[in-house]
Amino acid sequence: MSYRIEKDTMGEVKVPADKLWGAQTERSRNNFKIGPAASMPLEVVYGFAYLKKAAAHTNCKLGVMDAEKRDLISQVCDEILEGKHDDQFPLVIWQTGSGTQSNMNLNEVIANRAQQLAGKVIGEGEKTIQPNDDVNKSQSSNDTFPTGMHIAAYKKIVETTIPGVKQLRNTLNEKSKAFSDVVKIGRTHLMDATPITLGQEISGYVAQLDHGLRALENTLPHLSELALGGTAVGTGLNTPQGYSEMVADFIAEFTGLPFVTAPNKFEALAAHDALVETHGALKQLAVSLNKIANDIRMMASGPRSGIGEIIIPANEPGSSIMPGKVNPTQCEAMTMVCAQVMGNDVAVSVGGLQGHYELNVFKPVMAANVLQSAQLIGDVCVSFEENCAVGIEPNQEVINTLLNNSLMLVTALNPKIGYYKAAEIANTAHKNGTTLKEEAVRLGHVSAEDYDEWVKPEDMVGSLK
Amino acid sequence: MSYRIEKDTMGEVKVPADKLWGAQTERSRNNFKIGPAASMPLEVVYGFAYLKKAAAHTNCKLGVMDAEKRDLISQVCDEILEGKHDDQFPLVIWQTGSGTQSNMNLNEVIANRAQQLAGKVIGEGEKTIQPNDDVNKSQSSNDTFPTGMHIAAYKKIVETTIPGVKQLRNTLNEKSKAFSDVVKIGRTHLMDATPITLGQEISGYVAQLDHGLRALENTLPHLSELALGGTAVGTGLNTPQGYSEMVADFIAEFTGLPFVTAPNKFEALAAHDALVETHGALKQLAVSLNKIANDIRMMASGPRSGIGEIIIPANEPGSSIMPGKVNPTQCEAMTMVCAQVMGNDVAVSVGGLQGHYELNVFKPVMAANVLQSAQLIGDVCVSFEENCAVGIEPNQEVINTLLNNSLMLVTALNPKIGYYKAAEIANTAHKNGTTLKEEAVRLGHVSAEDYDEWVKPEDMVGSLK
Amino acid sequence: MSYRIEKDTMGEVKVPADKLWGAQTERSRNNFKIGPAASMPLEVVYGFAYLKKAAAHTNCKLGVMDAEKRDLISQVCDEILEGKHDDQFPLVIWQTGSGTQSNMNLNEVIANRAQQLAGKVIGEGEKTIQPNDDVNKSQSSNDTFPTGMHIAAYKKIVETTIPGVKQLRNTLNEKSKAFSDVVKIGRTHLMDATPITLGQEISGYVAQLDHGLRALENTLPHLSELALGGTAVGTGLNTPQGYSEMVADFIAEFTGLPFVTAPNKFEALAAHDALVETHGALKQLAVSLNKIANDIRMMASGPRSGIGEIIIPANEPGSSIMPGKVNPTQCEAMTMVCAQVMGNDVAVSVGGLQGHYELNVFKPVMAANVLQSAQLIGDVCVSFEENCAVGIEPNQEVINTLLNNSLMLVTALNPKIGYYKAAEIANTAHKNGTTLKEEAVRLGHVSAEDYDEWVKPEDMVGSLK
Amino acid sequence: MSYRIEKDTMGEVKVPADKLWGAQTERSRNNFKIGPAASMPLEVVYGFAYLKKAAAHTNCKLGVMDAEKRDLISQVCDEILEGKHDDQFPLVIWQTGSGTQSNMNLNEVIANRAQQLAGKVIGEGEKTIQPNDDVNKSQSSNDTFPTGMHIAAYKKIVETTIPGVKQLRNTLNEKSKAFSDVVKIGRTHLMDATPITLGQEISGYVAQLDHGLRALENTLPHLSELALGGTAVGTGLNTPQGYSEMVADFIAEFTGLPFVTAPNKFEALAAHDALVETHGALKQLAVSLNKIANDIRMMASGPRSGIGEIIIPANEPGSSIMPGKVNPTQCEAMTMVCAQVMGNDVAVSVGGLQGHYELNVFKPVMAANVLQSAQLIGDVCVSFEENCAVGIEPNQEVINTLLNNSLMLVTALNPKIGYYKAAEIANTAHKNGTTLKEEAVRLGHVSAEDYDEWVKPEDMVGSLK
Repeated sequence: MSYRIEKDTMGEVKVPADKLWGAQTERSRNNFKIGPAASMPLEVVYGFAYLKKAAAHTNCKLGVMDAEKRDLISQVCDEILEGKHDDQFPLVIWQTGSGTQSNMNLNEVIANRAQQLAGKVIGEGEKTIQPNDDVNKSQSSNDTFPTGMHIAAYKKIVETTIPGVKQLRNTLNEKSKAFSDVVKIGRTHLMDATPITLGQEISGYVAQLDHGLRALENTLPHLSELALGGTAVGTGLNTPQGYSEMVADFIAEFTGLPFVTAPNKFEALAAHDALVETHGALKQLAVSLNKIANDIRMMASGPRSGIGEIIIPANEPGSSIMPGKVNPTQCEAMTMVCAQVMGNDVAVSVGGLQGHYELNVFKPVMAANVLQSAQLIGDVCVSFEENCAVGIEPNQEVINTLLNNSLMLVTALNPKIGYYKAAEIANTAHKNGTTLKEEAVRLGHVSAEDYDEWVKPEDMVGSLK
Repeated sequence: MSYRIEKDTMGEVKVPADKLWGAQTERSRNNFKIGPAASMPLEVVYGFAYLKKAAAHTNCKLGVMDAEKRDLISQVCDEILEGKHDDQFPLVIWQTGSGTQSNMNLNEVIANRAQQLAGKVIGEGEKTIQPNDDVNKSQSSNDTFPTGMHIAAYKKIVETTIPGVKQLRNTLNEKSKAFSDVVKIGRTHLMDATPITLGQEISGYVAQLDHGLRALENTLPHLSELALGGTAVGTGLNTPQGYSEMVADFIAEFTGLPFVTAPNKFEALAAHDALVETHGALKQLAVSLNKIANDIRMMASGPRSGIGEIIIPANEPGSSIMPGKVNPTQCEAMTMVCAQVMGNDVAVSVGGLQGHYELNVFKPVMAANVLQSAQLIGDVCVSFEENCAVGIEPNQEVINTLLNNSLMLVTALNPKIGYYKAAEIANTAHKNGTTLKEEAVRLGHVSAEDYDEWVKPEDMVGSLK
Repeated sequence: MSYRIEKDTMGEVKVPADKLWGAQTERSRNNFKIGPAASMPLEVVYGFAYLKKAAAHTNCKLGVMDAEKRDLISQVCDEILEGKHDDQFPLVIWQTGSGTQSNMNLNEVIANRAQQLAGKVIGEGEKTIQPNDDVNKSQSSNDTFPTGMHIAAYKKIVETTIPGVKQLRNTLNEKSKAFSDVVKIGRTHLMDATPITLGQEISGYVAQLDHGLRALENTLPHLSELALGGTAVGTGLNTPQGYSEMVADFIAEFTGLPFVTAPNKFEALAAHDALVETHGALKQLAVSLNKIANDIRMMASGPRSGIGEIIIPANEPGSSIMPGKVNPTQCEAMTMVCAQVMGNDVAVSVGGLQGHYELNVFKPVMAANVLQSAQLIGDVCVSFEENCAVGIEPNQEVINTLLNNSLMLVTALNPKIGYYKAAEIANTAHKNGTTLKEEAVRLGHVSAEDYDEWVKPEDMVGSLK
Repeated sequence: MSYRIEKDTMGEVKVPADKLWGAQTERSRNNFKIGPAASMPLEVVYGFAYLKKAAAHTNCKLGVMDAEKRDLISQVCDEILEGKHDDQFPLVIWQTGSGTQSNMNLNEVIANRAQQLAGKVIGEGEKTIQPNDDVNKSQSSNDTFPTGMHIAAYKKIVETTIPGVKQLRNTLNEKSKAFSDVVKIGRTHLMDATPITLGQEISGYVAQLDHGLRALENTLPHLSELALGGTAVGTGLNTPQGYSEMVADFIAEFTGLPFVTAPNKFEALAAHDALVETHGALKQLAVSLNKIANDIRMMASGPRSGIGEIIIPANEPGSSIMPGKVNPTQCEAMTMVCAQVMGNDVAVSVGGLQGHYELNVFKPVMAANVLQSAQLIGDVCVSFEENCAVGIEPNQEVINTLLNNSLMLVTALNPKIGYYKAAEIANTAHKNGTTLKEEAVRLGHVSAEDYDEWVKPEDMVGSLK
C-alpha cells in the first residue's frame, strides 16, 4: 500500500494514499483498535455534513469566510450526503468520548476533497481549505458532535421509527375494527376470564402504540435543540455575533426539520439528557411492542395443542428437524429487538449520568445506541406489519369452543344472585367437570330460562365496545 | 392472641380479633411471607380509599347503591385517608400481581369498619356492608389496582417530586445569577479548557432540571388516565351506564387532581406503560442529578489537595478516624438515590414488558418502584438544597489561581494567529513550564501588548453569557 | 419530648433523652430526611455488632485496649445481636456513601449503653467508653462499613437465599422424578413440538437452579474477604501489628462463617465488586426463576380455555369480581421478585462503577440492594415451594389429548422417509384437519402398520431420559 | 442480477445465482429486513462450522453417514473456518429467536458448496449432500444454535477477553511495583485523606482485575456445556446412541477447548443462563474498568488546573478548537465500552428470562451481546494498555506539593493525643489557612519535636504496604 504524509500539531503521520482523511483520523484509527472498524454510525457523519455546510454558510454570511471557501465546503458536504464518501470514515465508536477525531475526520476529508475539487493534489501546495481554521471555523468538537448526533437521531426518529410504528399501529387498528364482533374468552393471570372481543384486545395494542408515539414525539423538542455555537465549553468563544441562531436556521433549512439553537449551550455540551429522554420513549415503545408480540404468539400457539385462537402467516419452514412446523418468527424478532432496546436504554443512561464539568464524554456510545434502537424499532415494526400483523385472522372455531367452555361466564350472574352464589356455581362446575348452567340449575340458584337470558357472552363485552 | 373466624368463598380463616381485615387478607398474609410485612405502599392504600369512596358515590348516583351504604363506605374511606387505619394493611408487594388481595384488604377493612360504625360487632349478625357486593361494586381488582396506583403515583409526583426538584432548581438558578461574574477555568475531558463563569456552569444544571421537569410533566396526562370502569377485562362488565366518566370525575373532585377515565380500558388493565413512561422521566432526572451532584463534589474537593473551587456546607464530622474531615455527603446521598432510580427503571420496565393478554400482573412491583423513585428524588432534592446547594460559595482565591495558570487561554489567539501557531505556544509553555505570554512573545507570534489585549479571560465567556 | 445535649467535634446537638445514640447520629437524622426513617438494613447493624466486638477482642489481645472495655463493648454488641436495640438505629440508606454516620451510630449506641451498663448515666460524668477512641479503635468507617455489609450479605445468602432456593430445587427434583413417565407434548416457539416428559421439563428447571446455586456459591470467596484493618484508605494506619488477620479470625469465630481478611485492602475500600459479583449471581437466579414460574403458569393456564396440562394449588379466591377464579399467584409473586432483582442489579452495578480514588461511596445503596434481593429470592422460593411447587400435579387427561393431537409426532418419520416427505404429511394433515396417520397412508409414504410401529410418543422421549 | 430457483418444503424461491445459500436463507433475508444486513456475528457462523464438522464425524463413526459425505461436509466447514465464505452468511440477528434460518444458512451453504466440490453444478442433478437430511443429521436448530453460540462465546472469552484483561492487569501490576515508594495523598469522598502510595492505589486496580478474571473463569464450565444431541426439545430424538458425548469430544478436539456435552439438555435448550452467567462476569469487569479508567483520568487531570498527579501519554491533539490540548481519550473509550457492557447485560438478562417451555427464543440477541461485550472488553484493555497504562508516570512535584499541604496527616496524632484534639488542630489550621504543625504547637497539644517525629507521611502508608 502506498502512503502520503499528513501533519497535525503533533507531527507527521503516514496515511494511505488513496484516502481523503488526514493525520488525526489516522492517529485515531491506530490508537483505537476496538471492535469492528468504522463502527461510528454513518448517520452521525451525515449529521456532521449538514452542520459543516451550515457553518460555512453562516460564517460566510457573517463575514468571516469568503464565498469560495463556503462553496467548496458545501460541495463536499453534498457529496458526503449523497453517500459518495462513505468509505472515508473509518473511525469507531470507542474513541475519545467527545468524538473529536470524528469531527476531525470530517474536517480532514472535506479539506482534502476540496483540494481535489480545486484542481490540486492532496498534500501538495498550500491547502485551499484548512481543516481546523476553515472547515471547523466557529466550531469545536464539543458543539459539533452533539449537533451531529441530534441531527442524526432526529432524522432517524422521524424518518424510520415513527413511520414504522405508525404502519404497524394502523394495521392493528384496522384489525381491531375488523374483529370488533369476534367474541372470545378474555384471560387475566393467563386464566380464563370474562369475554372480550378480539377487536377490543387489539384496540389495547393500538392504544399502547398511540401513547408510545405521543411519548416519543414529546421528546423531539429537546432533541431539536442544537449545541452548535457553544464551541469549546458553551460560551461560544470564537464565534461571530448571531452565529448560533443563524447556523441552526441553516441546518433547519438543509434538513427540512425544525431544529433550533439550544437556549442553554452549557447543558447542550455537558449533558445529553435529550438522548436519555428520547431513548426513554424508545424503551417505552419496546415495552409495549414486547407485550403485543408476546400476546400474539401466545394466541397463535398450536396449531393443535396450544391456544390457537388466531392464525398468523406462515413465512418459512420453522424447523430443521420437525417437518411442517411453523413458528411466530416475526414475534421473536420483535421481542429480541425489545430486549436490545431495554439494554441500550441502560447504556445510554449510564453514559448520560457520568458527564464531568463542561463536557459529557460518552457522546459516541450514547448516539450509537439511540440510533440503533430507533432503527431497529422502525424496521421491526415494518417487518412485523408486513409479514405478520397484516395476515392475522381469527380461528373462529377454536375461539367459539374456548369461549363456551369458560366458567367465567358466571360473572354475569353477580348482579343477579351475588358473588358468593355465583362462586359456588363456578366452583362446583369446575370440580364436577360440568357446565355452569347444569350446576346453576341443580343448585337452585338460577332457572334454566334465566340462565339463558342472563348469560350471553356477546352481551358481556358491550359497555366499552 | 385471640382470633375470630372470617369466611370467603374458599371457607373459614382465623383472623386476629383486633384487626379489621377479613379472610382474604389473612390468606394473603400467610401465603406470601416474602420480605418485610406491610411493604405494599400506604400511598396505594390511600389511592384505593379515594376510588372506593368515588365508586360508592357513583354507584349511588347511578341508582345501584343506597345512600346509607354510600355514606358508610365514604366515612371509612375518609378515616383511612386521615391515617387512622394504617396498621390494617399488612400485605406485601410480592403477592398476586393484580393486587387482588390488596383490593380485598380494602374491601374487608371498609366492610368491617362500617359494621362498627353501624353500631354492630364484626363477625356478628348480617353484614351491613358486603366486601364484594358493596365495597367492590362495579369494580374489579383489575381496574381498581391500576386506578389506585395511578392516583398514588400522580399525587406523589405533584406533591413531592416536582416541588422538591423545583426547590433545588430555584436555588441553583439563584446561585447561577449570583455567580454570573465569577470567571473560572472551564474543563472538558476533565482537562483545562477555556474560561467559563461559575454562573454559566450552574445555569447548565438549571437547564437540565428544567428539561427534566418538563419531561416529567409530559408524562402526567397518561398517568391521569384511570382504568376504573373496565372491571375484569376492560369491557366494563357489571358497571352501570355512565359509570366510568362519573367515577373519574368524583376521583378528580376528591383528590383535586385532573384525573380522567382512560379512553381505552383494555390498555389500562393489560399494560402499564403509563408507569413506564413516568418512571422514564424520573430516570432522566436521576441522570441529570447524578451529573450535577458529581460536578459539585469534584469542584468542592480538597480542601487543600483537590480542585477546591467552591465551598459547600460542612454538616457533620466526615470521618470516624480522620479528625477535621468534611465530606460532600449530600452529593453522596443524591448519587445513591440516582443509582437506585436507575435500577428501579429496569424493574418497572421488566414488569411492564411481561403483561399477558388482558392483564399485566406486575402491578404492585411497578407501583412500588415508581413511588419509591418519586419519593426519593423529591426528598433528596430538598435535602440537597437545604443542606448543600443553598450554601455553595465560590472560593475566589483558588478560582483565580487555577484560571490564570491555564494554557487554554491560548484559544483566544486562534482567530488572530491560527490554530497551529497557537498550539505551538501552548505546547511549548507546557513543555517548559512557562506562561503562555512568555512563549507567545519568545516565539515571535504575538507582541506582549497584543497578548494582553487579546487574552482576557473575562472576555472569553461573553458571547453566551 | 425531653432531650439531652450530646457533643461532637462540631459542637452540641440535642438528642431525644430516651435514645442511646449521640450527636452524629442525630445530625444525620436531621440532615438526611430522605424516604422512610431507619431504612438502613438491620442486617448491616448486626454486621457492625459482630465487627465491633471482634475489634474490641483484637485490640485487647494486641494490648491496645484493656479487658474491661473489651467486655463492656462485647456485652453491648451481644445485646444488639439479640435484637434488644433495634430501635436505636434510625438512619437511612441515603446518607453519606461511606456509611460513616451508621458507623458512628453504632459507636455512639455502644458507648452510651456501656455507660448504662457501667452503672452511670448517659451524658453525665466521664465516658467509660469513648465512641471514637474506644469503640472505633483501630477502625475507620471506610473499612468497617464494607466489613459490616459483607458480613450481612454473606449471612443472608447462606442463611436465607441458598436454603430457600435449595428447598424449591429439591421439591422440583422430586416432581421431576415423580413425573418421569408423564409423556406430553413438547413446545418450542410456543408451538407444538416433539414429545417430552413432564419430568424432563422439570429436570431442566432443576438444572437451572443447580447452575444458579453453583454460580452464587462461586461468589462467596470474594464476599468472605473483609476490609477491616484497612482503616481510612487501605493502608491500615493506626492499627496494631497483626490486627487484620486476627480481627477476621474473631469475626469468623463469632459468626461461624469462613471470613478472611482481604488480601488487598485498597480494593476492599475503593471498589465493591464483591457485591457486584454476588448480585450478578442473584440476578442469574432471578432470570432462571422467572422462566420457571412463567412456564408453570402457562402450563397451569385454564382451567378450561388454556393449556391446562398441570394443576397447581388453589390458595385464595382469585378475583374480586369473577367468582370461582383461581390464579397462579405464587408465580406472580415470583416473577415480580425477579423484576425487582433485575432492577437491583443495575442499581448495584451503577453504584459499583462510580468509585473514586480510595473509596467507593455507594456502600449503603449497594448493600441494601444486595440484601433485599437475597432476602426476596430466598423468601419467594420458600413461598413458591410451599404454596405451589409441592402441589403441582399433571392433568393427565389434558396431557394425553394434547399429545395425541400433535402433528409434530411426524418427526419420528424423518429417519425412515426423510424430512421432505414427513413435512408433506404434516402440512397436509394440518391443511385438511386430519391425523398424521391418515395422511401418511393416503400419501403412500408409510403403511398403517409401519406408522403405528414408528410413531410412538413414548419412544420419542427416551434417549436422554 | 441473475437468479436460480431453490426449493424448500414451502415451495420455490429465487436466489442470487452467485450465492451458495438456498431457499430458507433467502426467505429469511426477505422476511427480516431489520437493521444492517449480515449482523449475525461471524463467530456464530464459525461455531456452526465446528459443530457441523463434528456432527458429520460423529454420524459417520456411529454408522449413520458414509465417509464420503463426512469428508465433503468437513471440507466445506474447513473452508468456512478459513474465512473463505464470509460473504455467504447474510442473515441478521433479528430473525427467528431459535436461529433456525442461520442453521439452515449453514446447512444450505455446506450442501451447495459440497455440490461444487463434488464437481457438480448447484441446482442441477441430484444433491450430493442434502441440507436437512445430511448436514443437519442428528441435529436441530434448537441444539445447534446454542452449541454454536457457546463455542463462539467460549473462544472469544479465552482468545480475546482474558488475554486483553491480563495484558492490562500485568502492566498495572508492574506500575504498582514501580511506584511502591511514591507516597501521595489519599482521597476518600474525593476529599483529602491520609497518605497512600501510588503503587498501593494501582494494586487495588490489579486486585479488581484479578477478581474479575477469576469470576469470568468461574463461568467457563457452564459455557463449556454443549446442547448438541438434544435435538428438537432436549430428548435427543433422531440421534444415534452415544452421539452427544462423541460430538462434544469432536468439538473439543477441533477447537482445542474443553467442551463437554451438557448434562441436562432441557436446560441447554430452554434457558441460556450460561450466557447470563458469563455476561454477568463481563459486566463485573466493566464495573471495575470504569472505576480504574475514571481514577486515572481524574489523577491525570490538568495539566495545570486539575489534580495532575500522574502523566499519561499524549496520543493525539485533543481539541479541534483548543490548541495544545491533550485528553485522556483511552479512559473515555474504556468508560464508553463499560457503559455499553452495562447495557448489554440487561439485554442478555431480558432475553434470558423470557424463555418459554422447551425453547428460549432470544438466542441470537443473547449471543450477539455476549460476543460484543467480550470483544470490546478485550480490545479496549489492549488499547488502554498500549496507549495509556504503559506510559503512566507519577508527576512527583505535584504529588509532593499536594501531599504536604494535606490536613489529614493529623490522623497520625490520633493514637498520641486522641481524636478530639487532633480534630481541633485540623479544623483550626483549615480555618486559619495555616499548617498543622503551627496549630498543633500553638494549641499546646504537641511539641514541634514530637510533631516532626510523629507525623511522617512515609510512615503512614506502611502497615499494609
